[in-house]
Amino acid sequence: MVRLDDDFAARLSGAATAVERALDRVLGSNPREGEIARPVRLVEAMRHATLGGGKRLRAFLAIETARMFDADTEGALRVGAALECLHAYSLVHDDLPAMDDDDLRRGRPTVHRAFDEATAILAGDALQTLAFDILADPATDADPLVRSDLVLGLARASGLGGMAGGQMLDLQAETETPDEVAIRRLQAMKTGALIRFSCEAGALLGRASAEDRARIRRFGEIIGLAFQLADDILDETATTEALGKATGKDSSRGKGTLVGLYGVTPVRAMLDDLVLEAEGVLAPFGDRAETLAAAAQFVAIREV
Amino acid sequence: MVRLDDDFAARLSGAATAVERALDRVLGSNPREGEIARPVRLVEAMRHATLGGGKRLRAFLAIETARMFDADTEGALRVGAALECLHAYSLVHDDLPAMDDDDLRRGRPTVHRAFDEATAILAGDALQTLAFDILADPATDADPLVRSDLVLGLARASGLGGMAGGQMLDLQAETETPDEVAIRRLQAMKTGALIRFSCEAGALLGRASAEDRARIRRFGEIIGLAFQLADDILDETATTEALGKATGKDSSRGKGTLVGLYGVTPVRAMLDDLVLEAEGVLAPFGDRAETLAAAAQFVAIREV
Repeated sequence: MVRLDDDFAARLSGAATAVERALDRVLGSNPREGEIARPVRLVEAMRHATLGGGKRLRAFLAIETARMFDADTEGALRVGAALECLHAYSLVHDDLPAMDDDDLRRGRPTVHRAFDEATAILAGDALQTLAFDILADPATDADPLVRSDLVLGLARASGLGGMAGGQMLDLQAETETPDEVAIRRLQAMKTGALIRFSCEAGALLGRASAEDRARIRRFGEIIGLAFQLADDILDETATTEALGKATGKDSSRGKGTLVGLYGVTPVRAMLDDLVLEAEGVLAPFGDRAETLAAAAQFVAIREV
Repeated sequence: MVRLDDDFAARLSGAATAVERALDRVLGSNPREGEIARPVRLVEAMRHATLGGGKRLRAFLAIETARMFDADTEGALRVGAALECLHAYSLVHDDLPAMDDDDLRRGRPTVHRAFDEATAILAGDALQTLAFDILADPATDADPLVRSDLVLGLARASGLGGMAGGQMLDLQAETETPDEVAIRRLQAMKTGALIRFSCEAGALLGRASAEDRARIRRFGEIIGLAFQLADDILDETATTEALGKATGKDSSRGKGTLVGLYGVTPVRAMLDDLVLEAEGVLAPFGDRAETLAAAAQFVAIREV
């Protein structure tokens, strides 16, 4: 197994810092071409939702995949920022009183607590729009085909048949205890699809061959699954203080997870297998894939 | 002035029917490539929000502008469907209890009344995503530059600096009675930007010259403004029964409109001027612009 060393930690935090800067730029208060004006309160709510930390895992996966295929750094940072906007929108809406009704996110008040419910709905809405705006902007990639493929990929990963659909299944799971097949589908949609697309976006920026893209898609699937299993373990074992958000909510609401179905120990074993599988999928890329392989391990053993 | 004849009525209802069919197709229950599965309840809520009528003004403007520039009909219908998805998303979210708290839309229960609040939030979210999905899909236009320009134009018209930003200003207007400049900016963002882009999208599909595009943008601005003024008059004068939604809400909440500021009669005079201005802007296109000129008149004198 790859060992997580200082180099990996430096890459992870370096990407997070660079993406934070990119987000700060796209969330300025001056209107862009084609915009009329940017209301201050809405800009502030969107900044509250996106800036100020987080692991930036989705951006990191896009950036590292892009780097493996020698893509332009600036474009990769912009794609990373778009992924984080999309992710932040989903968190803002999931936290709403009508959904998961959470007060705390990354140790800070959620957007509807810091502002109000209407502002939180609009901030989430505008963050989704901004994600597509960034991807379609010529500053992201000179090739319009790459841009429209990025938009289409993000739309398929995050809409009705991806993340939003997964959140719908998750709401229904509160009343209809799902089995393993249903849990896996729900998780593939709710969190897996966007993580998979984050990797694929890097391959698109890097003009990877169809074969390499398929490989990266599979890697993205594995890492998405590992992320969710690790999340379910953390929800069961970590404290609210450590995570900066409420824990134990899934099991107390009777939402199905594989940890709930089989317990923590077998799920840890599944995680080990997934890390090995990820390394196998990346093997043909050799040393170039070292950081992505380390990312799989990081996702599996993370403690926050 | 152009007279509204049977030919115009036939074009308007023909476009509405064709767009309804296009929406029915994109809102099927089978997942597309890149999607995992489509949850039935979410599909139903999205269909409730988008199907079953409405004037389809935004789609009509895109389709008629595209036709004037001899663009492909199928692509124009898809763009029309995308605009109606985006518009429907904004209505679903605006109707939520935390926003305008409306029970009725087009004479039917709003999505959060017919389903529930969480489903309405997700249906709106997924309708926004679907709009971008449709525009970025190669079925809409073979040229990826046109597709990414459509995505970028829609994002700028509907995000932070457009429609969503306008809704934010509208919420704030409940407490901070705005003056004419502020009302005009609010309306240009909340409803004007998307109507303007609807026209521009048709010009993009039709590969219009930069000069013609600028002309169409101006026409779109005029028609957006006329639409809003007519809406404000209707809010003041029509009944809930005639409109199929609550009326008199803007004035009772103290929201600023030009009707509130100056009364109905001067606003009707502004509308007449706008229709004349629209005809002037369209004059260089000659007879080809006959339907668009009629559309301006229709928007100004509409009774629902």
